[in-house]
Amino acid sequence: MDPIERAAEVRYTRADGLADVLRGADALFVYDFLSTAVPGAWHAADRLRWVHIASAGVDPVMFPELRASDVVLTNSRGVFDGAIAEYVLGVILAFAKDFAGSLRLQQRGEWRHRETERAAGRRVLVVGTGPIGRSIARLLRAAGLDVTGAGRRAVADDPDFGTVHASAVLADHLGHFDYVVAVAPLTEQTKGMFDAAAFAAMKPQARFVNVGRGELVVTADLIEALRAGEIAGAALDVFDTEPLPPDNPLWTMDNVLVSPHMSGDVVGWRNTLVEVFTDNFTRWCEGQPLRNVVDKQLGYVPSGGNR
Amino acid sequence: MDPIERAAEVRYTRADGLADVLRGADALFVYDFLSTAVPGAWHAADRLRWVHIASAGVDPVMFPELRASDVVLTNSRGVFDGAIAEYVLGVILAFAKDFAGSLRLQQRGEWRHRETERAAGRRVLVVGTGPIGRSIARLLRAAGLDVTGAGRRAVADDPDFGTVHASAVLADHLGHFDYVVAVAPLTEQTKGMFDAAAFAAMKPQARFVNVGRGELVVTADLIEALRAGEIAGAALDVFDTEPLPPDNPLWTMDNVLVSPHMSGDVVGWRNTLVEVFTDNFTRWCEGQPLRNVVDKQLGYVPSGGNR
Repeated sequence: MDPIERAAEVRYTRADGLADVLRGADALFVYDFLSTAVPGAWHAADRLRWVHIASAGVDPVMFPELRASDVVLTNSRGVFDGAIAEYVLGVILAFAKDFAGSLRLQQRGEWRHRETERAAGRRVLVVGTGPIGRSIARLLRAAGLDVTGAGRRAVADDPDFGTVHASAVLADHLGHFDYVVAVAPLTEQTKGMFDAAAFAAMKPQARFVNVGRGELVVTADLIEALRAGEIAGAALDVFDTEPLPPDNPLWTMDNVLVSPHMSGDVVGWRNTLVEVFTDNFTRWCEGQPLRNVVDKQLGYVPSGGNR
Repeated sequence: MDPIERAAEVRYTRADGLADVLRGADALFVYDFLSTAVPGAWHAADRLRWVHIASAGVDPVMFPELRASDVVLTNSRGVFDGAIAEYVLGVILAFAKDFAGSLRLQQRGEWRHRETERAAGRRVLVVGTGPIGRSIARLLRAAGLDVTGAGRRAVADDPDFGTVHASAVLADHLGHFDYVVAVAPLTEQTKGMFDAAAFAAMKPQARFVNVGRGELVVTADLIEALRAGEIAGAALDVFDTEPLPPDNPLWTMDNVLVSPHMSGDVVGWRNTLVEVFTDNFTRWCEGQPLRNVVDKQLGYVPSGGNR
């Protein structure tokens, strides 16, 4: 933060002190991207012109007052793309090769040969066509998987996905895929889109991967679908409540891989997040257009947008 | 085996009955590729002209009498390539994203965020430039890793590897790599090539992956290198004794992934192996050149060879 401290008065705070320091501030850098403190402190934002968030998803700051205001919102688009793509390919290969089964057998010292699956040729639906979804699509295609997208609008010849289905008719398509990857932004339209009907539409052999937001999923429906064998497994890096509560059944299901919201967080990510903010701060001071300006009605940075 | 049963008298046996059925046989299909029964039954091979083995590695039948004989040896080159490549990419991603750590935390219901590594850009040395090594190299390169080969001869511009180092000077190069993948054929030259000196030459951050043969490694040296932190981890699908004995320390080391010699064995592999034999059997009946003829002095099918 050195360059910023040289150019501005910087106040640091935790959630409970936000209102105090927000008074008089021109810009707010939300570093704890899951913080819900901003709406509660908003009354103190008496001259705020810019909010930057250290995440790709901006759902924690999509409250009505900010959306209705003239305050510009920017995000950290681009920081997590490659790492999350690798995580998704990794969990697909972990399912195909049953790494979890091998690890459990290893813990028991038990040698038990099983047959594995190929990943190449498997059909993957990536729901979310932003930069992270595109990075996932490119990596999976490079590894030989057959990738389709789902987004707000249907597209016939997308450069990364080939075909993009419209999310509004997702259920018509879900049955064709071996893996369904959720990476859509969390908005009023996408909240709870993976519900009982969606899981029922998937193949019994399908695995569900969530690297987007927990609230894209109706968690109780997912648990029921896994229990009933409507789908074969799930790899979940995000949850509607984080940390995932100790009594949540997902922890103990053998066909579920739980990770603690870390798929994008490679060594050095904290510095990278500050660099993204610093770059935008310099632009802001110089009166240049900011990068990664969120469309506050859509709830994300539009593609073909400003970066 | 139907096409073969229609064209020939087929005798099936387990290891202990091999000598009885080998007498008078023209061809031998070694389906249990780890069987050591062939040398012990060789005295009964009174008219044998062809041995086919249901594996890529032919080390179990590389005994002096077969090598010195006129009997043609063929292998199952090609069946395992893509599956093993996916396994190798999978374990690299499992290390980079610490899937084993996540699974152990999941078993304890413990939410603990960690930073992960990128796989892209990491340097990988693939030791073994046969079809499996090449398949590994192509897949890892497609996923953005930086791949180099090691083989019998140095090559400057290999199409799959770019640079291939000579295995004879391997120790000079091992220190440059984040991952070292063993997939060389097991021969007198390669046996025990991964010994204390080799592990000492690797980076402390390096992970070792063995999808070749257990005897490429001096297991006691590997265990010691892992314990001493000379290398950071190992993913092992093959062992010098299989099944891996219950008291072997590798079972219980947190930085080791043990799998039971299954990396190439995708659903359907048994049929594929029979198809490879059936194809060669048809060629043999018709007097056509066989595929995958092993150079019995080298101990593998030479590259640019006969398939």
